[in-house]
Amino acid sequence: MIRAIYIAPVVTKENTILSVGSMAFDSVSTPEGKRESALGGSVNYFSIAASPFVPVELLAVVGKDYPQAELEWLNTLGISTSGVKIADGDTFHWVGDYCDDLNEAKTLSTFLNVFEHFKPQLSEKQRLSDYVFLGNIDPDLQHSVLDQVEGPKFVGCDSMNFWITGKLDRLKALLERIDLLSINEKEAMQLTGKKNLVDASEQILKMGPSVLILKRGEYGAMLKTREQTFLAPAYPIKTVVDPTGAGDSFAGAMMGHLASCGLSRDLARKDSKAFHSQLRQAVLMGCVMASFTVEDFSFDRLRSLTGDEFKARLSSLRSMIEIDSSSALDSLSWRKNV
Amino acid sequence: MIRAIYIAPVVTKENTILSVGSMAFDSVSTPEGKRESALGGSVNYFSIAASPFVPVELLAVVGKDYPQAELEWLNTLGISTSGVKIADGDTFHWVGDYCDDLNEAKTLSTFLNVFEHFKPQLSEKQRLSDYVFLGNIDPDLQHSVLDQVEGPKFVGCDSMNFWITGKLDRLKALLERIDLLSINEKEAMQLTGKKNLVDASEQILKMGPSVLILKRGEYGAMLKTREQTFLAPAYPIKTVVDPTGAGDSFAGAMMGHLASCGLSRDLARKDSKAFHSQLRQAVLMGCVMASFTVEDFSFDRLRSLTGDEFKARLSSLRSMIEIDSSSALDSLSWRKNV
Repeated sequence: MIRAIYIAPVVTKENTILSVGSMAFDSVSTPEGKRESALGGSVNYFSIAASPFVPVELLAVVGKDYPQAELEWLNTLGISTSGVKIADGDTFHWVGDYCDDLNEAKTLSTFLNVFEHFKPQLSEKQRLSDYVFLGNIDPDLQHSVLDQVEGPKFVGCDSMNFWITGKLDRLKALLERIDLLSINEKEAMQLTGKKNLVDASEQILKMGPSVLILKRGEYGAMLKTREQTFLAPAYPIKTVVDPTGAGDSFAGAMMGHLASCGLSRDLARKDSKAFHSQLRQAVLMGCVMASFTVEDFSFDRLRSLTGDEFKARLSSLRSMIEIDSSSALDSLSWRKNV
Repeated sequence: MIRAIYIAPVVTKENTILSVGSMAFDSVSTPEGKRESALGGSVNYFSIAASPFVPVELLAVVGKDYPQAELEWLNTLGISTSGVKIADGDTFHWVGDYCDDLNEAKTLSTFLNVFEHFKPQLSEKQRLSDYVFLGNIDPDLQHSVLDQVEGPKFVGCDSMNFWITGKLDRLKALLERIDLLSINEKEAMQLTGKKNLVDASEQILKMGPSVLILKRGEYGAMLKTREQTFLAPAYPIKTVVDPTGAGDSFAGAMMGHLASCGLSRDLARKDSKAFHSQLRQAVLMGCVMASFTVEDFSFDRLRSLTGDEFKARLSSLRSMIEIDSSSALDSLSWRKNV
């Protein structure tokens, strides 16, 4: 006789990332061409890159000129745009040039427009977010978002030279409140005044965050915690069409994976091995996502990206760093000391 | 009853590397200081770095001003200097500056001196070398060394922008005769006219060598064969005192390991997996050796380097690229296609 067994429903609350940043029009020149007023902005790239992993709550402001259909497209990806304020005026507009150096944009113009009066207001639901990513905006705004969130599990943050120069004190105060900082190598040195990446990263880890991501452009990223260093190469691609959004989509896939695993700062204490293993995976996923992003202007490549394509490239990148553990140190012949 | 078993002695011919290149005095300025007429030269760095792995036969020319004691010191490392010609005149002298960019030396002066009339003449023993490394010298001299060697198992070669510009045809002819080419990223693009590293490396592999090492300065090295790509990061160190010789000592440790394993071009055909596994190990060893080299001026750091130090850093570098295979692609959650 088969007895009916009552199985209690498991209430799974899907981990959501709350992300704040800019939605923008980007006019970009690169060695591969030019695009006028393409869709962009840090929180756009971040959210689109995170959306295959977890739902995203997006906090931003756009002008009346931002296409409604594009907001609706985000919704189809599991990105809630209820936190996107549509303000009177034009959307933030950035004009940049990568013709001299694909690793570093030259900003030609910045039109803040409606972004100038952006004051993120969180809904009740958003206040309860477990995962938060503070895109690269004014540290005051980043503080204000964090002030409104109740007990998040893990907070990531991006910043840039502009804020290191202009609002260093507020940025430093923010570092004490976050778990993960993502900046590029030069910015790490600028933030700490150190000439060397090892020194700079050790210094930053003393400032607050327990996880530091140093973005290295075409060379990938370095992950630093107080216990470990992980060096992840960029996926080598044939043609970099437009580097815009590489860092933001890197962060999106990384945070997306971490949220989907339920990683938290508690895990770092309880199981450092699992914590670091997830972080390393997440960094590789960030590298893979960024490699797709730069293959076309705007986030056009991400629009068509499939899970199979992502997995294939992740698998390929993994194979490019693998070392045969059997031919490890034992096989090292060292005849004598020099 | 225990019967005596006759065990035939295994005749092991220790694999030796024949290496040709410059022995020099280097006067170098770096952000960390200045050294006048320090010992240097590509074949010095190469041989010292290879010597912990296998014996080295060195082919070079020095002037009467080169310290005899330093040649004797090389001998204590298992480096034969019977192929070092002591000519009338002064030793090759290079004056360089890394103050603007640690990744690229600015050559201030080059005094060829006795090097101008260098004509490598191989001994009978040297002609039978299984492993050959042609350091960065005039392609005509590289050809002449190769002309004198009888059926080597594996030939590596270094070159630079100067020869790509000045002797492209001779360099291209040389590429058809070698197994491994080691150059830096910029030189790879210059050699092929390609703007992209992936394209450039594919092109170079069509020119002859089956193994390409692209040196990336502080970012490590990329290994390319027709089948595989391996991305090796540089070991992150606190203070780069003098980058001189990084590439040569990288090549030395790499070729040293390959020779000690008995790697040959035949292995590539017979057991591609073993071939690539050894290559990857060798590239990591190159990265580790280079990281020690740059910690002091000249090859001063290599003078005191112990096998334990080398192994510890190799182990550390390996840990910085390791991915937990159990948390592999299966754990990737991808909710839907974007």
